[in-house]
Amino acid sequence: MSLLVAGTLAYDTIETPFGSVKDVLGGSAVFISIAASYFTTPVSLVGVVGSDFPKGEIDYLESRGVDMEGLQVMEHEKTFRWGARYHFDLNVRDTLFTELNVLEKFDPVIPPSYRKSSYVVLGNIEPSLQRKVVEQLAVKPKLVVGDTMNFWIHGYRSELEKTMKLLDVIIINDSEARELADTPNLIKAAKAIMKLGPRVVIIKKGEHGALMITKDTIFSAPAYPLENIYDPTGAGDSFAGGLIGWLAKTDDLSEENFKRAMIYGSTLASFCVERFSTERLKELTYLEIHDRFRAFKDLSKFDEAVALT
Amino acid sequence: MSLLVAGTLAYDTIETPFGSVKDVLGGSAVFISIAASYFTTPVSLVGVVGSDFPKGEIDYLESRGVDMEGLQVMEHEKTFRWGARYHFDLNVRDTLFTELNVLEKFDPVIPPSYRKSSYVVLGNIEPSLQRKVVEQLAVKPKLVVGDTMNFWIHGYRSELEKTMKLLDVIIINDSEARELADTPNLIKAAKAIMKLGPRVVIIKKGEHGALMITKDTIFSAPAYPLENIYDPTGAGDSFAGGLIGWLAKTDDLSEENFKRAMIYGSTLASFCVERFSTERLKELTYLEIHDRFRAFKDLSKFDEAVALT
Repeated sequence: MSLLVAGTLAYDTIETPFGSVKDVLGGSAVFISIAASYFTTPVSLVGVVGSDFPKGEIDYLESRGVDMEGLQVMEHEKTFRWGARYHFDLNVRDTLFTELNVLEKFDPVIPPSYRKSSYVVLGNIEPSLQRKVVEQLAVKPKLVVGDTMNFWIHGYRSELEKTMKLLDVIIINDSEARELADTPNLIKAAKAIMKLGPRVVIIKKGEHGALMITKDTIFSAPAYPLENIYDPTGAGDSFAGGLIGWLAKTDDLSEENFKRAMIYGSTLASFCVERFSTERLKELTYLEIHDRFRAFKDLSKFDEAVALT
Repeated sequence: MSLLVAGTLAYDTIETPFGSVKDVLGGSAVFISIAASYFTTPVSLVGVVGSDFPKGEIDYLESRGVDMEGLQVMEHEKTFRWGARYHFDLNVRDTLFTELNVLEKFDPVIPPSYRKSSYVVLGNIEPSLQRKVVEQLAVKPKLVVGDTMNFWIHGYRSELEKTMKLLDVIIINDSEARELADTPNLIKAAKAIMKLGPRVVIIKKGEHGALMITKDTIFSAPAYPLENIYDPTGAGDSFAGGLIGWLAKTDDLSEENFKRAMIYGSTLASFCVERFSTERLKELTYLEIHDRFRAFKDLSKFDEAVALT
């Protein structure tokens, strides 16, 4: 089914204890699109770059089945740039710099050919821009998935709440869920967040996996136990891409299929962090994805016990 | 199969955002024994109390099938006392006081009737005392499970390492595993800890569940999603009790059965935190345990996907 992905395209500069990279491909729309492209194509991308954005990366995304008609290229402007340093404990990150550049003027325009998209992902951008994407659609999508971050929770609360009313699914970090709902208990937080709009709340817990909470069910996806994590950047967006990619491919919004989508999301996220930037995502094979999905199953599967008494 | 539990018996004073209790029953041997008693009896307890310890609690433990022959009662001495305050975020705890009292003179003596125990749990006490328990056994047990804490990791490292050589299974918090192995990566930490002795490393992650790592496998047990956690005290020991109780009951040390034991441990821990002290553990029914075990299964179960491509 048709899939629209809106978000950022960026130059990332990343330092981790295992090395550093400068001006590499990043941004929410990039990670989401590449991850989703392993499940369904075309992926209709909406985003903005400056004239400094390399033609080679656009060609690469097109080669993966990403439709770039919705990409705005602003002449004489610079692409969004972001730099971060991860500590020895990769759960801790310092932002080194944020140069919004083209993002300051970004006004998403949805090409006519995208306007009947059935599946929509709103990557992490300003909540009012996320809303503009949805408002330009000609047909109500089957599913709208949105991401957000603490910056918008703190400073753009009322805008964010307006956007949340449009979401079927919100994907959010555990600390952000706690902040948004003002409670340390994640289950309570999810229930409070549901009242703001989304009927599915997905809480990403980094190395502890992810939770999906709906009115009727709670599903716990484990994290894949990696000994070597090179760069956590893009893991959350790869999760979102794998999740929506699977849902769009199967066009099945049952609870059971959402659980599978959670595991495909976790699968893509687990690959993402194995190399810097999009390096690992770019070279994936279907066999690798399949094998890791199976490995996730083994990770949490246990047999029925014999009777207790 | 015969089960020996060594550890503390305590008066706990606990403050949480939901209330407070003073001088209630606590201690590692208490939580482990009660949890294990739902699976196998008798549980042979080894520990120490002062003459202030209430007869009613001893009677209660005996009523659950806990053999108290190994309990030393020191006349004119006071029982171990511990006080803690949990924050609004229950993951954060301040120790208010620690009065070792009888623990300062504790020298565990294993009654002859305990010395052929097949299953042994060493609750969190000084590592040299844990070792003394094992050294008094007449027959090598089938399984020795040990717990420890950051206090011993920091101040008693060489003693702890001697004890670890005797352990088949170590149960440890995530932060303690990171400290013990000096790496933030839990999988690497578990592999390093295995080199110190235990062939099974179980890492408790609180609200994120628990991991079991062996040479050949990794198993991820989810946490039960509770909206109301009243008192986290004893959760780790209840986990250990449920785990060893199931293993001793079934006398099956296969990997598959260890996974079930992880879930029974998680089940008992999830009940423990629903009330203060041992209140909830004391009133459990087999049906409740069975139902929650099944709920754990639903929490992480997903069906095989259709073919990816």
